[in-house]
Amino acid sequence: MAYANPTLGDDAAFGSFEEAGQVKKLRAPYLIYFGDVADAAHAKTGLGLIQWRSRLCAGQMRMPGCRIDGGIREMCIDDALESGVKSLVIGVAPSGGTISADWIADLAAAARAGLDIVSGMHARLTSFPEIVAAARQSGARLIDVRTPPANLPIGTGEKRSGKRLLTVGSDCAVGKKYTALSIEQEMRARGWDADFRATGQTGIMIAGSGIPIDSVVSDFLSGAAEMLSPPAPETHWDVIEGQGSLFHPSFAGVSLGLLHGSQPDAMVLCHDPSREFLLGMESPQRLHMVSATENIEMCLRLARRVNENARFVGISLNTKGFSDAERAKLFDQYEAETGLPVADPLRDGVSKFIDRLEKERPE
Amino acid sequence: MAYANPTLGDDAAFGSFEEAGQVKKLRAPYLIYFGDVADAAHAKTGLGLIQWRSRLCAGQMRMPGCRIDGGIREMCIDDALESGVKSLVIGVAPSGGTISADWIADLAAAARAGLDIVSGMHARLTSFPEIVAAARQSGARLIDVRTPPANLPIGTGEKRSGKRLLTVGSDCAVGKKYTALSIEQEMRARGWDADFRATGQTGIMIAGSGIPIDSVVSDFLSGAAEMLSPPAPETHWDVIEGQGSLFHPSFAGVSLGLLHGSQPDAMVLCHDPSREFLLGMESPQRLHMVSATENIEMCLRLARRVNENARFVGISLNTKGFSDAERAKLFDQYEAETGLPVADPLRDGVSKFIDRLEKERPE
Repeated sequence: MAYANPTLGDDAAFGSFEEAGQVKKLRAPYLIYFGDVADAAHAKTGLGLIQWRSRLCAGQMRMPGCRIDGGIREMCIDDALESGVKSLVIGVAPSGGTISADWIADLAAAARAGLDIVSGMHARLTSFPEIVAAARQSGARLIDVRTPPANLPIGTGEKRSGKRLLTVGSDCAVGKKYTALSIEQEMRARGWDADFRATGQTGIMIAGSGIPIDSVVSDFLSGAAEMLSPPAPETHWDVIEGQGSLFHPSFAGVSLGLLHGSQPDAMVLCHDPSREFLLGMESPQRLHMVSATENIEMCLRLARRVNENARFVGISLNTKGFSDAERAKLFDQYEAETGLPVADPLRDGVSKFIDRLEKERPE
Repeated sequence: MAYANPTLGDDAAFGSFEEAGQVKKLRAPYLIYFGDVADAAHAKTGLGLIQWRSRLCAGQMRMPGCRIDGGIREMCIDDALESGVKSLVIGVAPSGGTISADWIADLAAAARAGLDIVSGMHARLTSFPEIVAAARQSGARLIDVRTPPANLPIGTGEKRSGKRLLTVGSDCAVGKKYTALSIEQEMRARGWDADFRATGQTGIMIAGSGIPIDSVVSDFLSGAAEMLSPPAPETHWDVIEGQGSLFHPSFAGVSLGLLHGSQPDAMVLCHDPSREFLLGMESPQRLHMVSATENIEMCLRLARRVNENARFVGISLNTKGFSDAERAKLFDQYEAETGLPVADPLRDGVSKFIDRLEKERPE
């Protein structure tokens, strides 16, 4: 496949993906299915997709009682077919990750009409006979984005061409996906050749491809990460969505496999300064967050095993709930402590990080 | 299951295992199947089992042309049944991990006679209809030890009672299994309550239970390691077989997940001083081995995240090919560098490590 790794970005035209390597690609444009979801927290997959890839989202489909509105065109399946929609994407993630029995009729009808069905649920689409039968009849694909590609290789540690930026975290849920997407957006706005590389189900839907890294068999962790960001032209940037934290005892193995396979040239640390204990580690473990400095140092030591030029270019701080004065103080504190630019992508964008990268950029 | 974690040791009587938790247990005694294997390298599972658990190995079964002799009683299936054998263990691992078509008749006959069939191959026993039909008829179990238990939990990082020793490595294939087995043996010889906990297929066959940690889905890595060494009495030692190395970019994620889930009180570093490059990293990566000191320091920093008392108690050195004078020099060098006792388990045993542990042992 050489250097051809087209990720369908916000600016890409509608149309079907080329299959690249073994990483499954979604076919746009999408019909976002919100079912009967009652709140935004459980609709963040669909809302995130509309936020980051609006031009790929042709419309939304909602059941009576649905209380979420993505602000895009309302469509039934016939409308979607007329508009050239290729995939129905389930934009809802109810607790437990199950596919509601109430949705089956809609999903089967869409599959019967030839739309690929895309799901990020734990429950597999293939476990619903009605959906399977409909897809078989029309040739539609059933895509469970939590299922990793088959035949993943073992990591080789071989240096690949092209540049890579990885967002790493001091914990789970500190903005690694959001930061990476913001960085891709900023790089593209500056005319750089950049692709967001997704490692979790929401990210995969937004990117249209990717590998759910925590679903990969351990032996193939770094191999999957290597496959996710293949060799590329020297000026190309892959912006890789990080997972977990090297200091989070539930997920550190995933974080390290991803770090080694990504061979990052640049890293951004994502951190929540308001958090005292790690997520899920509040009790009885009472496991404290580790300082930004210590996170940076540990990531660098381990990353330099595979890329001796690895460095940090910024700290992405979640400053939700802080006043402007508190924010200014926090920024000063972290800048003084680490010597790195600090920003909250949600409020400040990420131009500071790219400025730092640009200063160090060859040519 | 509380504190009841019987691992059938060398001194245990023949008999069937209790099921403990979700970790599958093999039923002894065993009939070791060598098939038509031509050399010891490909028979190391069976030979290892005979070496470490001789009293569980009632006999061996060989095809015409087999050139390996485990030195135990020759048996046909009828002999095995008469001797109370409960499982046929495939003691051979041909390159590629396939089950030879020539063995199918033997394996099916054993399953039909009611013997569990135990395999460490990549190929699944359940993919051979003749064997499946035979097992179904008799109620025998088909046990692929490379298949991890279902419903593994996510790691919690919660401190468990009991003591744990983990063998860690500066590389793959540096004696982590052998060292752990030697330590279990030495602890038991001193009357300690100790169990070897297996993380690879050969180790699992020797222990009679365990979890193939590199076959576990990444999200559950540390959770699997936590399950492998459950809460135990305060004076009990689990001796856990390490995998990979924190500095090996193919497998470091597995090593870190296992380290965090094991919460080791004590570690032994396994190291091959003759090796210049990491296994499989000789070319084109030319990835150098990392010093014992650096390995120790990195393991301690990451292990103390889950057990602040983690410490090293020895260095297990592979000194194959070194003269006595060279060995003496190496030992002096590593002892001076690390302040730890140094031994080659194969030549010196591991009493030095246990002496060190005993000095520090409570009561």
